[in-house]
Amino acid sequence: MIIVNTGNGKGKTTAAIGQIIRSLGQGFKVCLIQLFKGESFYGEQKILTALNNLDFYSYASEHPYCVKGVSVKEAANNCKPAMDKIKELALSEKQYDLIVLEEFNIALRDKFIEENEFIELVKEISKKSNVIVTGRGAPESLTDIADLVTEMKEIKHPYNKGAQACKGIEF
Amino acid sequence: MIIVNTGNGKGKTTAAIGQIIRSLGQGFKVCLIQLFKGESFYGEQKILTALNNLDFYSYASEHPYCVKGVSVKEAANNCKPAMDKIKELALSEKQYDLIVLEEFNIALRDKFIEENEFIELVKEISKKSNVIVTGRGAPESLTDIADLVTEMKEIKHPYNKGAQACKGIEF
Repeated sequence: MIIVNTGNGKGKTTAAIGQIIRSLGQGFKVCLIQLFKGESFYGEQKILTALNNLDFYSYASEHPYCVKGVSVKEAANNCKPAMDKIKELALSEKQYDLIVLEEFNIALRDKFIEENEFIELVKEISKKSNVIVTGRGAPESLTDIADLVTEMKEIKHPYNKGAQACKGIEF
Repeated sequence: MIIVNTGNGKGKTTAAIGQIIRSLGQGFKVCLIQLFKGESFYGEQKILTALNNLDFYSYASEHPYCVKGVSVKEAANNCKPAMDKIKELALSEKQYDLIVLEEFNIALRDKFIEENEFIELVKEISKKSNVIVTGRGAPESLTDIADLVTEMKEIKHPYNKGAQACKGIEF
């Protein structure tokens, strides 16, 4: 099953994290590959890395939009090992029940990774695992092959009233 | 901050679970009150109950829609201790950084709990804690007082093609 969490609202990442917790609770093996999130900034990372049966990989910790001085070329380069990791999963004997590809929709949108190559890889790994892809602006090529697509739609957000990102909620 | 996860799509509960994991990772104290979910059916419950700094309560495990032979009156009765627990939180010295009220929108929709009373309680506990309320069909009285509302909107769902609920994904 291919699952996509997209949309401009909150909950794409947290829903994927909840899904990981649900799968681990059923005794399943999970692989999480994150882009643009570093390895310790987000609260969930501290809990997730301590759990059994979860392999956690983080790449391209800095997105040019968030970190000044990071070039688009650099970001694209930093996404390469993430794609290599997915290729490795596609070929590996190791079986995961769930593979989560965090913020890959953003990497697609910004052309840091090649869309056709990514779609083929997702198709390949979905033969053996459930796959979740998150990030706003999922391309049609991805939603086309997906079984389950949810749009997290912002109805009301405190950022719009000028509020700051809140520890434990946004990170 | 009052946060509402609503809509007909997937991700309301898993986003709340992810939010709990994020908060716990920041060293925060969390209270989760679930309705209609039993205590061990869902994968996440097995992981959550083993984590530090999380108090987990589950009430009204059987919803009449899911379990034949459970009357509406019974379900309403079974929701009472959940409301009592929220009242206890409102009065307690114990401080939680995050309180999650799972599926309470359903209890409101089905009139198992009294809307005005619930709204006043949410306002009260939100003075000391961030509060997340989940469930489809959030009433306007709740979204009115909320700071952050996300609609999880179903774009594509395998149920529509006749697929069954999948272990590790839906439960």
